[in-house]
Amino acid sequence: MAELLLGKDVNADLNERLLSRVEKLKEKAVIPQLAIIRVGERPDDLSYEHSAEVRCEKLGVKICKSVLPADCSKEDVIDAIHKANEDSSVHGVLLFRPLPKGIDEEAVIRELDPAKDMDGITTASMAGVFAGNGLGYPPCTAQAVMEILRHYNIPLAGKKAVVVGRSMVIGKPVAMMLLKENATVTICHTKTVDMPSVVRDADLVVVAAGHAGVINGEFVREGQVVIDVGINVNEEGKLCGDVDFASVEPVVAQLTPVPRGVGSVTTSVLAEHVVSAAEKAAGKE
Amino acid sequence: MAELLLGKDVNADLNERLLSRVEKLKEKAVIPQLAIIRVGERPDDLSYEHSAEVRCEKLGVKICKSVLPADCSKEDVIDAIHKANEDSSVHGVLLFRPLPKGIDEEAVIRELDPAKDMDGITTASMAGVFAGNGLGYPPCTAQAVMEILRHYNIPLAGKKAVVVGRSMVIGKPVAMMLLKENATVTICHTKTVDMPSVVRDADLVVVAAGHAGVINGEFVREGQVVIDVGINVNEEGKLCGDVDFASVEPVVAQLTPVPRGVGSVTTSVLAEHVVSAAEKAAGKE
Repeated sequence: MAELLLGKDVNADLNERLLSRVEKLKEKAVIPQLAIIRVGERPDDLSYEHSAEVRCEKLGVKICKSVLPADCSKEDVIDAIHKANEDSSVHGVLLFRPLPKGIDEEAVIRELDPAKDMDGITTASMAGVFAGNGLGYPPCTAQAVMEILRHYNIPLAGKKAVVVGRSMVIGKPVAMMLLKENATVTICHTKTVDMPSVVRDADLVVVAAGHAGVINGEFVREGQVVIDVGINVNEEGKLCGDVDFASVEPVVAQLTPVPRGVGSVTTSVLAEHVVSAAEKAAGKE
Repeated sequence: MAELLLGKDVNADLNERLLSRVEKLKEKAVIPQLAIIRVGERPDDLSYEHSAEVRCEKLGVKICKSVLPADCSKEDVIDAIHKANEDSSVHGVLLFRPLPKGIDEEAVIRELDPAKDMDGITTASMAGVFAGNGLGYPPCTAQAVMEILRHYNIPLAGKKAVVVGRSMVIGKPVAMMLLKENATVTICHTKTVDMPSVVRDADLVVVAAGHAGVINGEFVREGQVVIDVGINVNEEGKLCGDVDFASVEPVVAQLTPVPRGVGSVTTSVLAEHVVSAAEKAAGKE
């Protein structure tokens, strides 16, 4: 029976600290504000937007929204980004992706002010995570993994960490962040040979493969910490992770559930990035 | 007895292809040109500069140099960079680092046109290597490792690669480039526990630790490929790598020597970057 690493405890901790930072900003007459730019009405985007709105409202972080029709042009999205860049009351921008087909996403992202990039999508943020120099903001989900590890005091220095998945949203940035914490990091992917033996060798496993059931009981051993970043819908229409909970949970020491795990921490990280950006902007004035 | 993976064979192959690309550029009246910016007279810089000059001359790549006194200001270096950025006959820039203490290196690098960054030092190049999207140029030494692996047909897909070292010049970029070739990549460093067992588990070991003798016979097993990126001077005043050649060479299958290994390929890669940049510039006209 694994200890479940619940997001709500991490959130409680993060949010308490955030509230006092928002208070301090208020004393300087600064209200942190996030601009959400959404194209179309994708259910995933709407669901995340709702969670972000609930979280930000609780924390005193303002949100303004630019909602564009699904058939809008690249120029329309860029206009929304320019507006957010130029508005000094906006401290951060969340652009929902993927953008509809036909819109050149890279061209759009190039227009975003790196200082307002809350989800690690600009080249400046990517380079910051890669170099580990603290510049820019990492993708919120990747940082949510690190916040969970920190909250539960999971030791990282000198530990063997295996990351399953090599996306720019989670796999690669989490690998770099674990490396910065002095873990010995292995990155696995679809071309990895004998993944069960590689994963079993780890102290910590971060699973961000994007498919349900990628990691099951055969991949794990007792004593391991498993962080499940996946969000999938199973045959019964229920949310599930990339980890086969039924076979993994009885074996490992600690495990994040889905839902109630990593995903639930992401909006707190997003709010934290906005507050950080507001603090930086206030410090510059 | 290991097969020695010699740089000269890689160079012969690379240079033959480069010469024909330079010929084609000549037909368009384009001479690829590298601007070298050097501050002071550090022996390492002078030695590399000499090698680069010899290589580039053989290949028909022109070099222009800006040599600044060791006590110059940040503004002087930035002026040299601006000049190279603006000169359309200059296709690439090599800035020797580290710059003398007191000169803000990051501020200097921010001024360099990413399209002319031949050694992967700008944030745009870093992000390109991290994302594996082919944008920008990776650090020459990191790419030299990949050119050696390619030349000798070392299989990478599905293989276990261990990179020893996590610098932004070699360790991290090589790890990303190996990942792009579908290797399962582990990054080790000074905080790695029981490094011998981690390194022995690899099919391919890339050693970029920056210290002589970091990897000796106890770390290796038969059948492995070992790429030694280190350049150190031993007690007898001779060049040596990070790998203890005497104890490793009898054990492994293939090994790059130092000298005559990775280091000797670096200037070919540098020249290749300049030719690529010249081709891109010519294509835009």
